[in-house]
Amino acid sequence: MASKLPVSPLAPASFPRLPEIGGVEFSAIAAGVRYQGRTDVMLVRLAPGTSVAGVFTRSATRAAPVLDCEAKLALAATPGAGAAILVNSGNANAFTGANGASAVAEICAAVASAVDVPESRVYTASTGVIGERLPVDRITAAIGALAATLSPTGIEQAALAIMTTDTFAKGSQVQVDLPGGPVRIAGIAKGSGMIAPDMATMLVYIFTDADIAQPCLQQMLSQLTETTFNAITVDGDTSTSDSLILAATGAAGVPQIHDAASAEGKAFQAGLEQVMTDLAQQVVRDGEGATKFVEIAVTGAQSAADAKAVAMSVANSPLVKTAFAGEDPNWGRIVAAVGKSGAVADRDRLSIRFGDILVAEKGWVSPDYVEDDAAAYMKGQDLRVGIDLGLGEGAFTAWTCDLTAQYIAINADYRS
Amino acid sequence: MASKLPVSPLAPASFPRLPEIGGVEFSAIAAGVRYQGRTDVMLVRLAPGTSVAGVFTRSATRAAPVLDCEAKLALAATPGAGAAILVNSGNANAFTGANGASAVAEICAAVASAVDVPESRVYTASTGVIGERLPVDRITAAIGALAATLSPTGIEQAALAIMTTDTFAKGSQVQVDLPGGPVRIAGIAKGSGMIAPDMATMLVYIFTDADIAQPCLQQMLSQLTETTFNAITVDGDTSTSDSLILAATGAAGVPQIHDAASAEGKAFQAGLEQVMTDLAQQVVRDGEGATKFVEIAVTGAQSAADAKAVAMSVANSPLVKTAFAGEDPNWGRIVAAVGKSGAVADRDRLSIRFGDILVAEKGWVSPDYVEDDAAAYMKGQDLRVGIDLGLGEGAFTAWTCDLTAQYIAINADYRS
Repeated sequence: MASKLPVSPLAPASFPRLPEIGGVEFSAIAAGVRYQGRTDVMLVRLAPGTSVAGVFTRSATRAAPVLDCEAKLALAATPGAGAAILVNSGNANAFTGANGASAVAEICAAVASAVDVPESRVYTASTGVIGERLPVDRITAAIGALAATLSPTGIEQAALAIMTTDTFAKGSQVQVDLPGGPVRIAGIAKGSGMIAPDMATMLVYIFTDADIAQPCLQQMLSQLTETTFNAITVDGDTSTSDSLILAATGAAGVPQIHDAASAEGKAFQAGLEQVMTDLAQQVVRDGEGATKFVEIAVTGAQSAADAKAVAMSVANSPLVKTAFAGEDPNWGRIVAAVGKSGAVADRDRLSIRFGDILVAEKGWVSPDYVEDDAAAYMKGQDLRVGIDLGLGEGAFTAWTCDLTAQYIAINADYRS
Repeated sequence: MASKLPVSPLAPASFPRLPEIGGVEFSAIAAGVRYQGRTDVMLVRLAPGTSVAGVFTRSATRAAPVLDCEAKLALAATPGAGAAILVNSGNANAFTGANGASAVAEICAAVASAVDVPESRVYTASTGVIGERLPVDRITAAIGALAATLSPTGIEQAALAIMTTDTFAKGSQVQVDLPGGPVRIAGIAKGSGMIAPDMATMLVYIFTDADIAQPCLQQMLSQLTETTFNAITVDGDTSTSDSLILAATGAAGVPQIHDAASAEGKAFQAGLEQVMTDLAQQVVRDGEGATKFVEIAVTGAQSAADAKAVAMSVANSPLVKTAFAGEDPNWGRIVAAVGKSGAVADRDRLSIRFGDILVAEKGWVSPDYVEDDAAAYMKGQDLRVGIDLGLGEGAFTAWTCDLTAQYIAINADYRS
């Protein structure tokens, strides 16, 4: 299925050149989990001493690999030990009963043995169809070859191996100049549908050669997730498997960051936010059937929570999203989505902009509004809707895409 | 637009034969509000002494007619006076600033004068495009002709006049045999998209010749709305204009009902529930682009609120709804929708049925499950998904439809 879809018109021109991150090696293989003729399992080995943090879907029906990762990250990490990440595409190992957990245990044991790390430091994820037994044997049979081919340059191959209905591989990087010297951050992601907040959205793996104490790393990751991966939506649906893991190897030899609020901590977070925002936006740009990337910027809400409620209500509204698909500046549907959000709103203080075009203010269409201008604006590929509630200081920005007939075609046929 | 759409494949064979309700007269006219060549304004006159109750959208950006109806119903009704309802299609008179309220006032004054009722007992609604000025003059110019053609037999014409993208007129009726004699209930509705709970969903007008004290009538209406119009969803979106008005004329000459918990009160409510459920389901059957009608029956939740959260999460999931469109028994997506609902759920107690087919139980696919059977079941037009959470006694049933490419086509083009 994946390979049959045309590349999203919103895709970046190419996969970015990602730096090697000291202490991180990658490999990928075609294990035949479900797809034929493509890679579908990736392995990452992390050097001894690496700090690992994670955020995961909040679904009440979380998949077995997610439950396993959460349990392992809640334990104190084994100091000094190495770690590993193994991910397969094609099968989510979700809602597979007791079999799901035993599959995870088998894979973790095999990985631990092959790359010489404790089982408690092996993190897995599975993405694809729910409710079918994971073909564990095909994965464990591939682990020897994966371990033998680990390479610091394999990150793009890893990004390709974790794709499902993705039409392009997603990567991002930044260099941060800390007082003690430069550190690098490089990340990959997969995800194209079933993307909504209230979760750690999709599969995302980010690596850095900075040295960061684990509690500080976890704090930074959790906080930045709210305004990056939890600010995107494709269809409002939530997967049972979404995982984001951030690993800091310390290989750059720069002094350790212990405190997120320190100057170094803030500098690192700014870089991390850039990578997380970029990857999150790439996921939206690969939204199933998407032809428009849309930023929904809400200001003037009574609270940040209200701003987020409005932004996500608009970003998830099927009527708003189909209007984008039709290149229709249908601001009435935005008013309706603001109204249903549950946030405090006053129709007569509300203003709406498409890009720089003031569409509506004070409860009605702006006297200067020319619909032809807005219609021309809507023909663009990257759109921005500004919504000011006129009530306070609360602000939130969400990213979404349009809802097209192609979304239906992809999802009505996905298992076929 | 409306007339160009093919009739929903889920439509009833014909508009039902609705009884005359003593004290209620209808008329309809082509006033040219927006559409050409079809009726677009309806008028209802209610005899003196009629009790009127209403429920309305909870949107924070409610349209002017909704605000006006709410204010009037919050007042003590003028005892003994008649009442009137005027509804136009084509223009929602929503987000039209101060102009919206003055348009409502003009129309109410004209109706009050034409049919000799107090302005405080004239209820209006407008449905259609948001944010455009209502052409009040065309409506007020038609009121004389509407008043002159009122007839007890005009209910089907009224149902036709309030349609927008509806593909069939919606009506329902029942006779209730109270101890004091028979009473009749007849109702009409419009609605096909933008239908979600948290509101009084769409435009619905229900009439009875029972005699019911107003507070009791309101109590019955509010309570039954929760399990009827607030249990349906087409696209999870919420309109700024949705209104449900229930009028009891007392013309049957049967003793007044004061107490919803009395035997007569319960008997009447059972009949009212039947009409409200039927109309609500007809709205789903006219869901934009719908080809499947789907009942989502949740049982075994820890609470009724949890059951409703699960039912609506499944009923609103684009991934579940596209799977129905594809006739794919993709129960994994149902598991995911249960998980994201926010309700307490235990994967290993969850069971899922398609019709009578047990699909999944105890956290995995049932050993007796044969996917070909489920695939054959999904080819039906009326489907039922049973979800038992295995945790308690909470239950809720929701109704939804599939999500098809036709939904996108209708909504991407609606204003064009």
